Amino acid sequence: MTVNFSVDELIMAALKEDMPLGDITTDNIIDAEARSKARITAKEDGVIAGLDVARRVFEMLDRDVVFKCLVSEGDFVRRGDIVAEIEGNTRALLKGERTALNFLQRLSGIATITRKFCDRVKDYPVKIVDTRKTTPGLRYLEKYAVRVGGGTNHRYCLSDGVLIKDNHIRAAGGIKNAVEKVRRGIPHTIKIEVETETLDQVKEALEAGADIIMLDNMDYDTMAEAVKIINKAALVEASGNVDMDRLVDIAKTGVDIISVGKLTHSVKALDLSMKFID
Amino acid sequence: MTVNFSVDELIMAALKEDMPLGDITTDNIIDAEARSKARITAKEDGVIAGLDVARRVFEMLDRDVVFKCLVSEGDFVRRGDIVAEIEGNTRALLKGERTALNFLQRLSGIATITRKFCDRVKDYPVKIVDTRKTTPGLRYLEKYAVRVGGGTNHRYCLSDGVLIKDNHIRAAGGIKNAVEKVRRGIPHTIKIEVETETLDQVKEALEAGADIIMLDNMDYDTMAEAVKIINKAALVEASGNVDMDRLVDIAKTGVDIISVGKLTHSVKALDLSMKFID
Amino acid sequence: MTVNFSVDELIMAALKEDMPLGDITTDNIIDAEARSKARITAKEDGVIAGLDVARRVFEMLDRDVVFKCLVSEGDFVRRGDIVAEIEGNTRALLKGERTALNFLQRLSGIATITRKFCDRVKDYPVKIVDTRKTTPGLRYLEKYAVRVGGGTNHRYCLSDGVLIKDNHIRAAGGIKNAVEKVRRGIPHTIKIEVETETLDQVKEALEAGADIIMLDNMDYDTMAEAVKIINKAALVEASGNVDMDRLVDIAKTGVDIISVGKLTHSVKALDLSMKFID
Amino acid sequence: MTVNFSVDELIMAALKEDMPLGDITTDNIIDAEARSKARITAKEDGVIAGLDVARRVFEMLDRDVVFKCLVSEGDFVRRGDIVAEIEGNTRALLKGERTALNFLQRLSGIATITRKFCDRVKDYPVKIVDTRKTTPGLRYLEKYAVRVGGGTNHRYCLSDGVLIKDNHIRAAGGIKNAVEKVRRGIPHTIKIEVETETLDQVKEALEAGADIIMLDNMDYDTMAEAVKIINKAALVEASGNVDMDRLVDIAKTGVDIISVGKLTHSVKALDLSMKFID
Amino acid sequence: MTVNFSVDELIMAALKEDMPLGDITTDNIIDAEARSKARITAKEDGVIAGLDVARRVFEMLDRDVVFKCLVSEGDFVRRGDIVAEIEGNTRALLKGERTALNFLQRLSGIATITRKFCDRVKDYPVKIVDTRKTTPGLRYLEKYAVRVGGGTNHRYCLSDGVLIKDNHIRAAGGIKNAVEKVRRGIPHTIKIEVETETLDQVKEALEAGADIIMLDNMDYDTMAEAVKIINKAALVEASGNVDMDRLVDIAKTGVDIISVGKLTHSVKALDLSMKFID
Amino acid sequence: MTVNFSVDELIMAALKEDMPLGDITTDNIIDAEARSKARITAKEDGVIAGLDVARRVFEMLDRDVVFKCLVSEGDFVRRGDIVAEIEGNTRALLKGERTALNFLQRLSGIATITRKFCDRVKDYPVKIVDTRKTTPGLRYLEKYAVRVGGGTNHRYCLSDGVLIKDNHIRAAGGIKNAVEKVRRGIPHTIKIEVETETLDQVKEALEAGADIIMLDNMDYDTMAEAVKIINKAALVEASGNVDMDRLVDIAKTGVDIISVGKLTHSVKALDLSMKFID
Repeated sequence: MTVNFSVDELIMAALKEDMPLGDITTDNIIDAEARSKARITAKEDGVIAGLDVARRVFEMLDRDVVFKCLVSEGDFVRRGDIVAEIEGNTRALLKGERTALNFLQRLSGIATITRKFCDRVKDYPVKIVDTRKTTPGLRYLEKYAVRVGGGTNHRYCLSDGVLIKDNHIRAAGGIKNAVEKVRRGIPHTIKIEVETETLDQVKEALEAGADIIMLDNMDYDTMAEAVKIINKAALVEASGNVDMDRLVDIAKTGVDIISVGKLTHSVKALDLSMKFID
Repeated sequence: MTVNFSVDELIMAALKEDMPLGDITTDNIIDAEARSKARITAKEDGVIAGLDVARRVFEMLDRDVVFKCLVSEGDFVRRGDIVAEIEGNTRALLKGERTALNFLQRLSGIATITRKFCDRVKDYPVKIVDTRKTTPGLRYLEKYAVRVGGGTNHRYCLSDGVLIKDNHIRAAGGIKNAVEKVRRGIPHTIKIEVETETLDQVKEALEAGADIIMLDNMDYDTMAEAVKIINKAALVEASGNVDMDRLVDIAKTGVDIISVGKLTHSVKALDLSMKFID
Repeated sequence: MTVNFSVDELIMAALKEDMPLGDITTDNIIDAEARSKARITAKEDGVIAGLDVARRVFEMLDRDVVFKCLVSEGDFVRRGDIVAEIEGNTRALLKGERTALNFLQRLSGIATITRKFCDRVKDYPVKIVDTRKTTPGLRYLEKYAVRVGGGTNHRYCLSDGVLIKDNHIRAAGGIKNAVEKVRRGIPHTIKIEVETETLDQVKEALEAGADIIMLDNMDYDTMAEAVKIINKAALVEASGNVDMDRLVDIAKTGVDIISVGKLTHSVKALDLSMKFID
Repeated sequence: MTVNFSVDELIMAALKEDMPLGDITTDNIIDAEARSKARITAKEDGVIAGLDVARRVFEMLDRDVVFKCLVSEGDFVRRGDIVAEIEGNTRALLKGERTALNFLQRLSGIATITRKFCDRVKDYPVKIVDTRKTTPGLRYLEKYAVRVGGGTNHRYCLSDGVLIKDNHIRAAGGIKNAVEKVRRGIPHTIKIEVETETLDQVKEALEAGADIIMLDNMDYDTMAEAVKIINKAALVEASGNVDMDRLVDIAKTGVDIISVGKLTHSVKALDLSMKFID
Repeated sequence: MTVNFSVDELIMAALKEDMPLGDITTDNIIDAEARSKARITAKEDGVIAGLDVARRVFEMLDRDVVFKCLVSEGDFVRRGDIVAEIEGNTRALLKGERTALNFLQRLSGIATITRKFCDRVKDYPVKIVDTRKTTPGLRYLEKYAVRVGGGTNHRYCLSDGVLIKDNHIRAAGGIKNAVEKVRRGIPHTIKIEVETETLDQVKEALEAGADIIMLDNMDYDTMAEAVKIINKAALVEASGNVDMDRLVDIAKTGVDIISVGKLTHSVKALDLSMKFID
Repeated sequence: MTVNFSVDELIMAALKEDMPLGDITTDNIIDAEARSKARITAKEDGVIAGLDVARRVFEMLDRDVVFKCLVSEGDFVRRGDIVAEIEGNTRALLKGERTALNFLQRLSGIATITRKFCDRVKDYPVKIVDTRKTTPGLRYLEKYAVRVGGGTNHRYCLSDGVLIKDNHIRAAGGIKNAVEKVRRGIPHTIKIEVETETLDQVKEALEAGADIIMLDNMDYDTMAEAVKIINKAALVEASGNVDMDRLVDIAKTGVDIISVGKLTHSVKALDLSMKFID
């Protein structure tokens, strides 16, 4: 990932959150010129994501820090593996430690669970995608971590993708009307997705020219039937409380895409530690 | 919780993240003046936290929205319980839905797990406290959710609390020096905490006049011994990979405080849904 | 247009640009409580866009201002038509006048020229779309004005649409590779557009599965040939120094979309005046 | 122009507007380390303004970019002239292209028309000045471009200049009162300008000690008479729908200053292209 | 003073500085709905400035607060006088107290000393003006307080006024050159001031057409001589370590303006208290 | 002091306040490449604080400036001593001069008066601490200057320290209740301070377990009696209109801490000048 303006702002905000007025322990004890070396180590198995973010944390505190990655973004590491070595101003290392780990552990946690979901269906031509159930403020990074884990992204937000839901359909008086209204108002570069709960709705969406049809909380047979009806005329997305156990059965229905909220809404941070070394 | 400036800014940022340029589905389909009613329902058991945040999300989109709480902040709800009813501009309800739930589910998830930790040791005179292992940008709200769940907070950040760790001790040439250096530089209103790994360090910290002594990753017997040595002359905090299974044994050692990183670093969102009703 | 956060920020920034430290003429002469009435009048024919923006300018300066529109957004007005009447605090009216007009005149100018382009090809099934050649900072409003004028929008920015150009093709070693690389990395909700300069490239893009094929600076015959080759398998966009004179000839080639940079890069403000009335 | 904080913020905002979340085409296709060379060429005759702004755009994306100007700020270029060569990271060049051109074309368009106005009256001792009819957010740069084109600036905004208009005069009960009220409230470093529509008002303004007298929408004879009456005791500014055709006649009346709204409110971008070269 | 955007931002920043994460004393003790009444009282004699700022502090914390002024802006109050009564939410009153007083005391301190300087020379036709020696961030309010105290303002900042100093003169090769260079580059609405240290420089400045001539650190006789030389052809400003003792002697020299750094650089806060009443 | 993000933002804001749109005198006269050398000299005796802030001012304007300190932070300088020499771009030096001095003079003024207060009681085991009576926006720097002068800091703000005052006590129904309520809600790392006006309240606070007891406006005998009663069980702080004359008498009562509002609320800037040298 090329770190960009938005990410830099996030990091800056995180550092200010943790240190609005300096680190009163470190500033009073550690010499301003002292230098140290530290090591980030995996304390459990998982996929690493966010190395560039961690590096930027330290670079913002010490322009001359050396952050040496010993694994690559997206690598699967095992307990005990050294992830990175950091050398620089001691104060900067102590001040950045928690913020760097908070990012790195969270993003790696997301990449790790995404990898598991992807691996489970790797024999099926199906994509695992995320949702908008992300942590407020961190969507960009969390969606990035999903990609690192092997998943792909759904629309970023309400402004750049169309998902016509039940309420929209009712307000517009049917799927056809809803799709037409939207099509007139949006760029021609954006696809139109319609959420459906029944096969009748699937047919309606198809006729309306939906580019993507979401099958919301359908049972396996209905999904399979929907896939047959749609017959490649639109992308088919399965959605609704997807978990690891149901994944293969969903994939077998022939859908193109499975969206999984829990990739981001219930993240278990990957356990990493940062230790100072001599 | 009284919603404040910082929280309002967070909410605004979250809304902008999800809707930098409007909701292209809703804006093209739903009439600008349409009004609707919706209901937030619990889909699993847990403790509710963040109702004021959810309300502010909708208020920012529709000044006249009515957000009626059917449970109180901190209440334990059961699957199927109605949490809140919201009535207002339809566009506002659709636009705010995901952001409101993203906050509410996450904060309730934190309150729920905190409640479990607190309940487990409710027969012991010990406090469950959080750590700085929070989501970047959300610390204020996450620490608030810990309090809603019955926990208390550790220092907010590096600027308002002192925790002297191994590196500080080595740099200062001993605990005594470190404590003295810090004491000269900080407000008299802040307590000094020292992290210890051995009973010798515990004694050193005690002699140095530490206000709080953290026992880091000690076994139960050593902890109990440390508590005896300290003998109420300082607060005693147990720390290090605390989980539910070890909680009672740690409490039995007589420590005053148990800090638990997983209250915030690995949150399972509480499952909530928002449905439009007629 | 529903005014939103981003637009409010733009307006606030514009007001601060024009009045960082108050209006030293008005504040020294006009009584703080004085009230006035003013009228915005068209001084030439055109399409009105930006009424909500103008209203917000005054609302930010006087919460109780009454801004009464006498025409609707998108209406074609003639010289002398009254566009709006504003009643409120005199200082607010004087302070907001220039900023409100600067927005309203510019957006109306864009709507006006867009309407002219659309009218010229109204007998052809072709859409007039804008480009990214917008004024820095004003893209959201300028693209909105294009829609008011009857046009539709191209991608908003580099982050939410794909346009594979010459350099991308060369770097990827061909259109096919480029399309595949992009498809793996982007949400499934976004279409892929390829810029082509020759019929061979058109065919390549078609085979690569491009959703939209841009014909860049082609002559009419080549465009017509391209349209025949593509044969509805992708949307076809004509681009490159489009002006009023060439518009019908381009439309006749059968393309679906004509993108026009001058809708936004060379705007003639619609002449409007604001006069105080008794 | 020395690029400054405000300009840097404008550029940053423009880049974020065009690329809030990266360039999904470029980031997926172009290698992160690739380097390229490109050339900005004039596609029509005009005056160049904004080279430093264009350079900063690229510098913000690639600290090591080399932006070599082949013409100087304010130079008149002819169709085909190379304006600048840029060498640096390919992604940076692709990402910055549109933003850099959007600034450069607009500013050059302003400089070009300003130059035309100035040239037309170069034989008269009169200054061409701009107005506050600028694009919201871009006033600083647009007024800069006016200076590059040979014009001078009117007051920057409502806070740093005084212009007493009709409404102020009526509210104060006459020009004399208005001038006195303002003079008491403003720094002694700021001149006072009064807008007049009749010779009686001109006389009143003169008696009140106005430093600048604006002749608003007067015919040539009245203007000439006003100039005679004022007789160098104040600067004289002609204003009101000034265009190229009327310019010389206005200049002949002997006014010191002619203010021209269209220098900035209706800008035709100068046609420039950026091409990658081998 | 009409409170404006900039002032609101200052107040918001001040409240956040004092309360980034709530008031942990008040929020834990005072009921969220409790209401109180408080009184601001003068504890020493002085001129009140900043009542609107104080009111806004409380309004930002409690939209419904009633802030009743018992004196007017600019009034001279005596020890024991009640300045204002505030009624509203108790938490809001407690949270806003210190910030409101910090503003009000400082601004009143400035108005008080300014009044003293003005009173001392009230029999002379001379203005007391401030300088740019203001507190970083507070210039707008501090210059406002100077006006409340009866003084007038010098230029606001480097961008809106010209003061040609020694270094500029040397760099330009003389006063004449410097004035000409500046005149070409600045709006015609801004006066040109030249700093002089000798009568020769005064003459040079006069010949160069300076609008204002500053006499920097001259003795009384030289000042008087300078005034005679200038003979109303330019405004004359005396500057340099002006204090109360020298004021009348300077005024007697006939200068138009005396600028006084200590109006703002060394402010004694006016002693005010806020007490809760029953 | 290690300069940090917050301080950089303050400096940037101060520079923008003084130069939102460039320095129109300097930019028109001084060559963009010119270089100069200048010297900051003390014009009266005092303690220097803020050298790093002054350096950052110039560094922000000229990345390559050389700012050479000839005294150290906290040094006592005498009239005529050279404080620093600055070499760099002439425009940068001229533009930064006033802002740098405004910070440096103010902070040095605070350090100077703090030093005087500390020196007066240097034979007593008592600390001089500041209050929240700081200039809005500058608290961080002003509290830093207090430390440079030899004082220590009280709580930074309402969010990170507890001070239970009269209103809190009444609302809670007594000191005991107030302390208990607060203790439940705050981190265990923060001490609790209670403001008392009588010896009865002192006893109550002591029994409630207050960590710090403030003696507010007590006479010397009562203070001495309070110190005896408290008997080291809590820190004792004397407060209330403390000035130099009363300082030793207060210290003699045996209190641990004396808080002094005038360290920051009524600052006399230390007189410093910056002169260009050859």
